[in-house]
Amino acid sequence: MIKLSKPTRLLFGLVSGLALAGFFCPAWAQDAAPAAPAAIDPAALSALRVGLDTVWVLVAGMLVFWMNAGFALVESGLCQAKNCVNILAKNFVVFALSTLSFYVIGWGLMFGDGTPWLGTSGLFFVSGADNSPALGSAYASMNPFSTATYEGVYSAINWTPVPLWAKFFFQLVFAGTAATIVSGAVAERIKFSSFIWFSLILVAVIYPISGHWIWGAGILGSTPTESGITAFFGNFRDFAGSTVVHSVGGWAALAGVIVLGPRLGKFKNGKIQPIPGHNMTSAALGVLILWLGWFGFNPGSTMAAMDGSAIAHVLVNTNIAACTGTLGALITAWVLLKKPDFSMVLNGCLAGLVAITAPCAFVTITSGAIIGFIGGVAVVLAVIFFDKVKLDDPVGALSVHLVNGIWGTLALGLFYSTDIAKSVAALDTGLTAGGQFLAQLKGVLLVGAFVFPASLVVWYVLKAVTGIRVTAEEETEGLDIGEHGNEAYPDFTSAHK
Amino acid sequence: MIKLSKPTRLLFGLVSGLALAGFFCPAWAQDAAPAAPAAIDPAALSALRVGLDTVWVLVAGMLVFWMNAGFALVESGLCQAKNCVNILAKNFVVFALSTLSFYVIGWGLMFGDGTPWLGTSGLFFVSGADNSPALGSAYASMNPFSTATYEGVYSAINWTPVPLWAKFFFQLVFAGTAATIVSGAVAERIKFSSFIWFSLILVAVIYPISGHWIWGAGILGSTPTESGITAFFGNFRDFAGSTVVHSVGGWAALAGVIVLGPRLGKFKNGKIQPIPGHNMTSAALGVLILWLGWFGFNPGSTMAAMDGSAIAHVLVNTNIAACTGTLGALITAWVLLKKPDFSMVLNGCLAGLVAITAPCAFVTITSGAIIGFIGGVAVVLAVIFFDKVKLDDPVGALSVHLVNGIWGTLALGLFYSTDIAKSVAALDTGLTAGGQFLAQLKGVLLVGAFVFPASLVVWYVLKAVTGIRVTAEEETEGLDIGEHGNEAYPDFTSAHK
Amino acid sequence: MIKLSKPTRLLFGLVSGLALAGFFCPAWAQDAAPAAPAAIDPAALSALRVGLDTVWVLVAGMLVFWMNAGFALVESGLCQAKNCVNILAKNFVVFALSTLSFYVIGWGLMFGDGTPWLGTSGLFFVSGADNSPALGSAYASMNPFSTATYEGVYSAINWTPVPLWAKFFFQLVFAGTAATIVSGAVAERIKFSSFIWFSLILVAVIYPISGHWIWGAGILGSTPTESGITAFFGNFRDFAGSTVVHSVGGWAALAGVIVLGPRLGKFKNGKIQPIPGHNMTSAALGVLILWLGWFGFNPGSTMAAMDGSAIAHVLVNTNIAACTGTLGALITAWVLLKKPDFSMVLNGCLAGLVAITAPCAFVTITSGAIIGFIGGVAVVLAVIFFDKVKLDDPVGALSVHLVNGIWGTLALGLFYSTDIAKSVAALDTGLTAGGQFLAQLKGVLLVGAFVFPASLVVWYVLKAVTGIRVTAEEETEGLDIGEHGNEAYPDFTSAHK
Repeated sequence: MIKLSKPTRLLFGLVSGLALAGFFCPAWAQDAAPAAPAAIDPAALSALRVGLDTVWVLVAGMLVFWMNAGFALVESGLCQAKNCVNILAKNFVVFALSTLSFYVIGWGLMFGDGTPWLGTSGLFFVSGADNSPALGSAYASMNPFSTATYEGVYSAINWTPVPLWAKFFFQLVFAGTAATIVSGAVAERIKFSSFIWFSLILVAVIYPISGHWIWGAGILGSTPTESGITAFFGNFRDFAGSTVVHSVGGWAALAGVIVLGPRLGKFKNGKIQPIPGHNMTSAALGVLILWLGWFGFNPGSTMAAMDGSAIAHVLVNTNIAACTGTLGALITAWVLLKKPDFSMVLNGCLAGLVAITAPCAFVTITSGAIIGFIGGVAVVLAVIFFDKVKLDDPVGALSVHLVNGIWGTLALGLFYSTDIAKSVAALDTGLTAGGQFLAQLKGVLLVGAFVFPASLVVWYVLKAVTGIRVTAEEETEGLDIGEHGNEAYPDFTSAHK
Repeated sequence: MIKLSKPTRLLFGLVSGLALAGFFCPAWAQDAAPAAPAAIDPAALSALRVGLDTVWVLVAGMLVFWMNAGFALVESGLCQAKNCVNILAKNFVVFALSTLSFYVIGWGLMFGDGTPWLGTSGLFFVSGADNSPALGSAYASMNPFSTATYEGVYSAINWTPVPLWAKFFFQLVFAGTAATIVSGAVAERIKFSSFIWFSLILVAVIYPISGHWIWGAGILGSTPTESGITAFFGNFRDFAGSTVVHSVGGWAALAGVIVLGPRLGKFKNGKIQPIPGHNMTSAALGVLILWLGWFGFNPGSTMAAMDGSAIAHVLVNTNIAACTGTLGALITAWVLLKKPDFSMVLNGCLAGLVAITAPCAFVTITSGAIIGFIGGVAVVLAVIFFDKVKLDDPVGALSVHLVNGIWGTLALGLFYSTDIAKSVAALDTGLTAGGQFLAQLKGVLLVGAFVFPASLVVWYVLKAVTGIRVTAEEETEGLDIGEHGNEAYPDFTSAHK
Repeated sequence: MIKLSKPTRLLFGLVSGLALAGFFCPAWAQDAAPAAPAAIDPAALSALRVGLDTVWVLVAGMLVFWMNAGFALVESGLCQAKNCVNILAKNFVVFALSTLSFYVIGWGLMFGDGTPWLGTSGLFFVSGADNSPALGSAYASMNPFSTATYEGVYSAINWTPVPLWAKFFFQLVFAGTAATIVSGAVAERIKFSSFIWFSLILVAVIYPISGHWIWGAGILGSTPTESGITAFFGNFRDFAGSTVVHSVGGWAALAGVIVLGPRLGKFKNGKIQPIPGHNMTSAALGVLILWLGWFGFNPGSTMAAMDGSAIAHVLVNTNIAACTGTLGALITAWVLLKKPDFSMVLNGCLAGLVAITAPCAFVTITSGAIIGFIGGVAVVLAVIFFDKVKLDDPVGALSVHLVNGIWGTLALGLFYSTDIAKSVAALDTGLTAGGQFLAQLKGVLLVGAFVFPASLVVWYVLKAVTGIRVTAEEETEGLDIGEHGNEAYPDFTSAHK
């Protein structure tokens, strides 16, 4: 038997006495022993963490929602005054419909448990909610912060993920963005009702399917299997959607632009006629709104706030790419067009943002600056190119979202940093930059090979069934009067009348 | 005497030795036993929670503040260019005055401890701050998350509520909203100074009194008593202010519209003359700002971030009602007016938002979608109705805020879900949907029976004392020159000169 | 020997038995004793705190970033339509360049460890990042919440500061603001390229040096030494940058205004010709954006979210000063100019915000209201004064940022409250209001004595080397066509043609 010395026993008596007193008389114990073990329920810490993560994800989602205002202003500002109401109205209606169609079916197809090709469980009305944990975990696997980081620290805590409705809202605003991208490219000549139908199909079916491949534990985002077609693909990375959102929107827009044809008067006698936007204040404010919204788009894609360092890295990368994109386009436009055309500067900013969206959590800050700069140069060249091949895109949506969506996705491979991938994305594939580039290239091609022809089919069917273009008279007079019976600025004299 | 076996005593000695060592030598304990009880002060967890709650409440409050920009743009955009500066100026001044009057007296009347009819303690300069716990607890009782949720988890923690200045700011921006609603309805003909006086009285006295009934532990929000008039009322619920803010603003606006009379030329020879808004870009951006702001208005009314699931539910409900409101108005306008008039679409969106404000924490997502859709239909019918009865409301404020404020408040009863009330609002009344509807109806009537006549009196007194309407010359020329000596757009040619 | 009574021993055996069981069988303990010590790792709490602080700092930084949109709209709105594109473009490019130059060199000069006069370590590319803790701690010393508050509560926790990239982003957006202030004052006549060069030098060198004195543990912010020049200065306080950002931008702008000279036609035959802004909707929205952004600027300067009470105090002070500034300018303009000129009201709002920026964490709410009101009066008088002395500042930037930057910095001393300084800023100097005023005055003079002449030199060098003013023809025609080949509103008829 161990014999305790007298002072030890004395202390022991004292301490255990205090502990017992605290146990039976909590009010008094609060003062005497503020850190009494009984007070600390690990569930409280877990609840607090979920609260913080949820606030972050929702605030980020609000910022992405706010991009609706940015798209509305950029698109309407870069178009003519006579079509302004129509473009603004499209932006409202497309998001309203996106919300409904993503709620009814899109979410299930994208995040529902299923095959490598599409979700098949809990398809309708987010019904996999709480009874289908597969939904949650499949989703979480693409957002490693939710589970991986601080694993050790939290080992003893029964961790609960961000609530399903928070995830739903965050993903919904991304889906809405894809549809909005199309809006700008087909502006000033499309029928309001055909655009509504196309958006509905894009958000309900096309976007969720390719999204499932990448973010829904599908064929592209997963680790390649041993054999079969799933061995060919996989290890594709797209942190916040250069491909999932932007190039998907871009492919759908390209199909629309081809099927619709150019605006009347855009290519006259083989010459390109510039049709300047009616409101540069709108366009500039719109781009600043989008820039702000991107701070939700990219950093929010961490889906958790525990790793502040990762959020900050992603945010600084996002910001610097916007800046170098702006400067890249400024310089390129100054050199090629002799003057720093403002719409090029604006599109350069957006190009940098689109380009950094995939790689922001996989590359260093200096790489981010380079990726953005190349994006800014590329957007000016692309605008000139699309004009040359007579694809009429009033706002430059193809150059911004399609070209730079692809560029950003590939840049993730070219500038792949194992260190950053491990510490920021916590999603290292273990590949070299070269291997990662190849994985990215396959993904880019697969997504394009699905979204572009699928969109073409939808546009052609709509064209055959209801027609997709307004009459020449309406196009000349403006879609605002023709489609809505409104004028955007009735108190001002038009310079064209 | 209980005899401890030898191994038990051995273990006990070991453990208590470690505990004692940790107690007297914390630095060593840190390394040897990183989770030593001494390290965890429950106050740290509590402080962290208050920090998180405060950040959430303040960010939500900022979003509601941001609605000032939304109202300024919607109201000025839907009015004529010649009155634009006046409307913008009103929006600045009304919020500046709201801040002062709510600081000086409004807060005390609304949240001060007192009778079921109004606050009577700590009336001036938020003086109940720290010495009047009644202020805090009375307020907290309407925001159950502050106390009820996670009761068990936190039982041993001396919980501190969100700081008083955070509550004050959040409530202040709500009070400002009520005054701003009036601004749009009385636009294009009211004297700048009379509007200032009315706003001051509304925010200092009228708004806080009806607010006290509902959110200040007053007669409507409380549990009914056994007998007396307080037995007739009670159990009224309004999560974020369909009644407290929107219908109160709406009743005050209705009184103003009646006393002021219509704009010159609005009803000529018994015919309704449309006076289109001058800037649809402004109006659209304004609505998107309001939509974003509503993500603070409704989800922020949880007043705490611990229950992320509740915030997310409220937010998704808010968003879906805005979407279905947009579509409801779109379809109704398309059917009734043959074209999807854009100002109707915008007001439909706002109608959905106003309607979901009361019930967002008491109904399912699908109910939220239905409530919003009906709001969107209602707003189009209401605009047509108010025109027919010759009540001239330039921006549709009555149709949006009064009609849908009432509709949303009643809808809370019609679609009342006990499950959602318990899990999201944590404020279940225990009533059936029918019983809840009755409680809501009584509240709607009581608030209207107070705010409308009180506002009428104030408007009539102002009319008698200083006059409330500008001269016919000034109205024709525009209030910008008449009241401010400014033009909103001096570099452009007016279409009306 | 102490003899324990029988029931005490009984209880003790029970409790220690439970404790031991929990220790050796955690799974079971989870149910039986939910708060078993082993579950709580202090690192988890620390990580959670850093996550919360980071989210707050980044969200606040985003709000400050958003001020770019505010400046772009205020400046372009208060200028003529023909220069609108140029002003918008400057705002994009200046922030893009600020980001790069602050990344490359500015951050190191401002926050690098070094002399009392400037940072000298880790100068380039934020290279002091993780290997130079001096950077972190020097910075932290100016942001006491990071270390001081809750010291006791956290004593046992190994606390980690906010990630360096988060600090970098927050400081970067402040640096960008200083450059943007200059933009408005030199608008409508400066060459695009010269403005780019000046901004680059301002953000890379001038701003960081005076910033180092105040926020970088330099000569002004530190405690005075025993002897030498460093005994003369010190104890200067500037919570969020009335001097660091606003008066620095103001001094640089003043130098530019002097070197450039007034716009053509502004002072004709000794008379002041008003040149009204082209878009009051832009200007009003811009001010509301800035107001919102200021809720990041000031409350975010706590750099931590733990002390919600401090954030709330700073925020309420910020808001009330904006309100009283608005009213102060409204009344002053109404009295002096007979009508409440709207641009005066807008500048009054900004004046209140600039003035409260330094003192918001050192004065009571009522003091904040007074400081803002005086700021609003001052800005009207200053606009009149600068016109009288023929300094042409198209947007009132000198009156807002220079005059009120100085006023706010001095007001911190005049209204200094030891109580607030201790509880909110946690940075009490121990001085009386008089002593603090003197410390503030010395700082204001030192900063002015450096920034103004340094800026003058840069402007004169640029003037000598490349010229800084556009040709008279270009100025008359507008800089949009001349510098960018764009028109801001090509679809509208100009009132001046």
